[in-house]
Amino acid sequence: MATTKRPTAKSKNITNGTSTRTSLHSIQNGKMRAVIDKVMPCIDGGLYPIKRTVGEPVIVKADVFADGHDTLVVTLRYRNSGEKTWNELPMEFLGNDRWQGEFVTSLVGEMEYAVAARVDHFLSWQSGFKKRVESGQDAEALKTEVLIGADLLGEIAKRASAEDTKKIKALQASLKKKAGTTESVSEALSDTLTRFAEQYPDESITAQSNIYRVTVDPPKAGFSTWVEIFPRSWSQTPGKHGTFKDCERLLMDFAEMGFDVLYLPPIHPIGVTKRKGKNNSTVAQAGDVGSPWAIGSKEGGHKAIHPELGTLDDFQRFVKKARSLGIDVALDIAFQCSPDHSYVKEHPQWFKWRPDGTVQYAENPPKKYEDVLPFNFETDDWKNLWLELKSIFEFWIQQGVTIFRVDNPHTKSFAFWEWCISELKRDYPETIFLSEAFTRPKVMYRLAKLGYTHSYTYFTWRNNKPDLQAYLTELTTTDVKEFFRPNFWANTPDILSEEFLHYAPPSAFMLRYALAATLSSNIGIYEPAFSLCLNKPLVKGKEEYVDSEKYEIKAWDMSQFNIRPFIKRINQIRKENPALQQTNNLTFTQVEVAPQVESEYLIAYLKSYGNNHLLTVVNHHPSQAQEGWVRVPLEALGIQEGEPYRVRELITNTEFVWNKAWNYIRLNPNELVAAIFRIEPK
Amino acid sequence: MATTKRPTAKSKNITNGTSTRTSLHSIQNGKMRAVIDKVMPCIDGGLYPIKRTVGEPVIVKADVFADGHDTLVVTLRYRNSGEKTWNELPMEFLGNDRWQGEFVTSLVGEMEYAVAARVDHFLSWQSGFKKRVESGQDAEALKTEVLIGADLLGEIAKRASAEDTKKIKALQASLKKKAGTTESVSEALSDTLTRFAEQYPDESITAQSNIYRVTVDPPKAGFSTWVEIFPRSWSQTPGKHGTFKDCERLLMDFAEMGFDVLYLPPIHPIGVTKRKGKNNSTVAQAGDVGSPWAIGSKEGGHKAIHPELGTLDDFQRFVKKARSLGIDVALDIAFQCSPDHSYVKEHPQWFKWRPDGTVQYAENPPKKYEDVLPFNFETDDWKNLWLELKSIFEFWIQQGVTIFRVDNPHTKSFAFWEWCISELKRDYPETIFLSEAFTRPKVMYRLAKLGYTHSYTYFTWRNNKPDLQAYLTELTTTDVKEFFRPNFWANTPDILSEEFLHYAPPSAFMLRYALAATLSSNIGIYEPAFSLCLNKPLVKGKEEYVDSEKYEIKAWDMSQFNIRPFIKRINQIRKENPALQQTNNLTFTQVEVAPQVESEYLIAYLKSYGNNHLLTVVNHHPSQAQEGWVRVPLEALGIQEGEPYRVRELITNTEFVWNKAWNYIRLNPNELVAAIFRIEPK
Repeated sequence: MATTKRPTAKSKNITNGTSTRTSLHSIQNGKMRAVIDKVMPCIDGGLYPIKRTVGEPVIVKADVFADGHDTLVVTLRYRNSGEKTWNELPMEFLGNDRWQGEFVTSLVGEMEYAVAARVDHFLSWQSGFKKRVESGQDAEALKTEVLIGADLLGEIAKRASAEDTKKIKALQASLKKKAGTTESVSEALSDTLTRFAEQYPDESITAQSNIYRVTVDPPKAGFSTWVEIFPRSWSQTPGKHGTFKDCERLLMDFAEMGFDVLYLPPIHPIGVTKRKGKNNSTVAQAGDVGSPWAIGSKEGGHKAIHPELGTLDDFQRFVKKARSLGIDVALDIAFQCSPDHSYVKEHPQWFKWRPDGTVQYAENPPKKYEDVLPFNFETDDWKNLWLELKSIFEFWIQQGVTIFRVDNPHTKSFAFWEWCISELKRDYPETIFLSEAFTRPKVMYRLAKLGYTHSYTYFTWRNNKPDLQAYLTELTTTDVKEFFRPNFWANTPDILSEEFLHYAPPSAFMLRYALAATLSSNIGIYEPAFSLCLNKPLVKGKEEYVDSEKYEIKAWDMSQFNIRPFIKRINQIRKENPALQQTNNLTFTQVEVAPQVESEYLIAYLKSYGNNHLLTVVNHHPSQAQEGWVRVPLEALGIQEGEPYRVRELITNTEFVWNKAWNYIRLNPNELVAAIFRIEPK
Repeated sequence: MATTKRPTAKSKNITNGTSTRTSLHSIQNGKMRAVIDKVMPCIDGGLYPIKRTVGEPVIVKADVFADGHDTLVVTLRYRNSGEKTWNELPMEFLGNDRWQGEFVTSLVGEMEYAVAARVDHFLSWQSGFKKRVESGQDAEALKTEVLIGADLLGEIAKRASAEDTKKIKALQASLKKKAGTTESVSEALSDTLTRFAEQYPDESITAQSNIYRVTVDPPKAGFSTWVEIFPRSWSQTPGKHGTFKDCERLLMDFAEMGFDVLYLPPIHPIGVTKRKGKNNSTVAQAGDVGSPWAIGSKEGGHKAIHPELGTLDDFQRFVKKARSLGIDVALDIAFQCSPDHSYVKEHPQWFKWRPDGTVQYAENPPKKYEDVLPFNFETDDWKNLWLELKSIFEFWIQQGVTIFRVDNPHTKSFAFWEWCISELKRDYPETIFLSEAFTRPKVMYRLAKLGYTHSYTYFTWRNNKPDLQAYLTELTTTDVKEFFRPNFWANTPDILSEEFLHYAPPSAFMLRYALAATLSSNIGIYEPAFSLCLNKPLVKGKEEYVDSEKYEIKAWDMSQFNIRPFIKRINQIRKENPALQQTNNLTFTQVEVAPQVESEYLIAYLKSYGNNHLLTVVNHHPSQAQEGWVRVPLEALGIQEGEPYRVRELITNTEFVWNKAWNYIRLNPNELVAAIFRIEPK
């Protein structure tokens, strides 16, 4: 443990350069010679934290050097944010002035890390002394050198504990006395001296890098399996409005299927004015229930529960019951109002008023969304608006909710999100925020940097092998992997992928699920539309479902054919194999239909964690059998070509023995859309 | 011209994120919605300036976006450091949220740049209004929209000049009056309104990026041709110590040969104690003149002139005469002392003293350099040491010297260099500092970031085509190009390249010169060793010249065979062709000996500036003729395959007409080591 002055993340050591000119008097200590540069991981110069789940390691690298040839001591410092003292570990020299160290995150919250480095005078002297001895200088010739070492030892003694000071002074006295003798040479080189030098460094010449932050999230930030349902469709009496009580019976099914997050669209009172009818009709008929995203009525707003779903007590009971089965209930936070929301009357300054006395509704000309009024984030009263919006999250956190799916965050102010999420994460570090930003890549990445734990992705629109490989490579091998956690959804109530799922057979749904579930550790589906393989769009060319549950109550019949057994099996494989509980451990491998000819439809990739190695092969054609030769990256597994190794296919639970890198595989979508091989080197 | 509050380079807009948590009250304006990210060029997050020569453009790119779909106005701001107001130019949208702008550096000194962006309410409204009109909404239906536009116009009026306020209010009144009519629609869309919106932006919601700096150097920082000589070897009486006066007669020759920097090894009094003899012998004989790098004797130190070279007046006269011929005299600054230097007695605290009462000399065990005492940069008196060292530069600047070659900067404190060079560049922006750091790449790059204008390079040790191409690609296509200016030396008094120049024929010297001179705009040679093609090392395996001029006086006979006519011709081509006056405009092209078989020895590259296009082909074999097909990158020149184009080889001054991309070339080192083709598209 080392205690140092605490530079803030914005302060800089002079040895690391300054962005403005420095007067001589502003330089803290001109004797500080070590230089620290290019600390990684580092997002935008340290402006934003990286992300890890608790227990995950952080591997830190940095360029460290000094003028001349003196001995450098380089350490990794880390602590929980707010602590004053650092934990400190030595870093290892990698060559080319690069150093590496590693610490493991130990609490849900925020941690900090920095790199420290110094020239060590005693160790430099000892290393030079050793070279002299090795080059044949004799004890007599080394007398003065020994005396120099003894002086440097005196400097260490000044920094040591009272007890060690005595010991060091005794060693120093012995050196001085024996200088010129053979004995003094071996004493000068002793490990005891080395250890004292390491134990009592000169902090006044120790340089420290900027301080970098890591957001340490709860385990479900790293590995989670989401299912989305509309509670109103689960009454046991068809046509009746479902309630939280009705949904309690679903929880055990979902738990057994392997889901651990149950996400509900907004559960608040739904507006009446301009209510949407079935299939997004602008005119509602009598009995139409409206869209849950048109939030607010005389029964309440964002902190109320739609009376037809039940009471706040019912909701709390539902949340508790879910949690007892390992399921977290996630709420949808949509910052917008129906015209009936009390905010409109109570805080008219939070909306844009038109000269005709109406409030500006949401629109993207010529499209109109008259049932929804957006907030005006440019209101002069922005501070109160921000505080109120944050209090909505806090209200639901107090009801036991820790996971939020945020609707269209990219249409709200980025500054608001940065402030809001950082405040919430400070007070409730266990919270998880999923960004529903289907927009341009830089905007999605920005929201992740500002604090979103998860993000929806382009997965739904990556429907061929090159596109999938390129997208996953961007997500898992660039800086993006440090701050952006993809959550792969195979469908949502808004997205029935036109390209791949319109009028598609069950095999298409199965292969997309297998793909999502083995590529990304965080996934989700909208149910039961997905397991029932609903494949009809409202119109050709759009991704809306026909007769969408967004605008009406459904009565689902789960006795129909569905792919739930397949989903359950895949989820079980994910639970049993830690390699599938991470996303960035992905390596694509080749599948060839002939030498040097890559298969168009068979996609293969290895994921490893410890000694858990999974090779997944997916046939991305929904109806044609595909065959080819898949290459097992033996070099990464420590297996020699020709050496037999066991392979277990986990969906069918079948065992093989392979002994080569290239292995034949055939996948017929009528039988098996994907194979997940667990490879077991000896 | 826009005037804004001046954020320092360290301050941040909230919209660009904060590195620590932000309380609501610390947020300047929550209504600021534009976000600016990834501004380029940017060295280490803006900590260090980029470099340009005066008149060079700076192309700035940035990611800029906001929530939602409003109209963004993005501008590039630039100014001379120290000015309060910005010059401002619109940036152009490149796609994928990327924007670009460009300004031209206009003075030697330091300039600053930043990117600014805002959501513009009026322009957003006008753009939405246009969409409504285009989608067929009629004037009557647009009445309210026109009134909204009129209100926004009122906001612009508040920011306008008195005169324009009147005009804008009149336009507003007209819109209000005519709202609902066809006339109001065309008035609402008028360019006059657009221009007023652009002219009077709302600065309170304009976000600005960090401020980035550019060091603007004098022209010779970008294009220079250096020659190094030992003045003591140029007496007209062989064996006598040469003087500045003797050297005056060389100036015209060097000017005619095309050199514009004459660099002299240290010109200070040379120590007597431990003086080195010929060939670096540790014992000097009577009459041995010693190494100029053993600085300081009873005749003076770093601010004195070795009496045998002349007086300070002689030196000033020499500098002036050189300048009148377009040549700058560059001095060698070596921060080290002979044991006879007055600093040792006057400032003993600046050296490391050993217990035996001696000063620690320079050594890298077991090697010893007893004629040289290094400064102890870790002295408690570091402030005075730094000030004294800086005053050495200042002394010579006052004598008319603006170019310095700094000896072994990597063995002195980096913090010192950062402070010293930034202080000097502030007061004397016309200065140029060449770093003689032959060390590890990251250390060399660090020195460049800290302020060095030029650096020695690994060119001397890049002696085959793949190595040369890889090195030049690193220097000219990565971030390195923004701050590190290579100065390619084909030889130095310390380096006769073992691999390529030991016992090599004149063709080897010629091809290395042609290569250096066409790859890098800054080059140098040590004369007359280079033009005389001196090729004998002291010992095999070392790069020291035999009978090195570093330790003795030579009497050069320039009537011997030499390659000065070739050097002169190459220098002349450089002067006449702006494409060779830059380094980063380099593109390698293929030379094939058979289809898809790259030539091992023929290296080809295109350099362009404006419509000056030079294709250089060098035969990197010193004795064998090489032939092959070189590809002219027609696509970059706007030439169609089959279309005839003129090509002039500049060394031989021969004209060709080519009409294809691939052209046959043969280079016989006995005739021509390289061809420099000027390509002249119609």
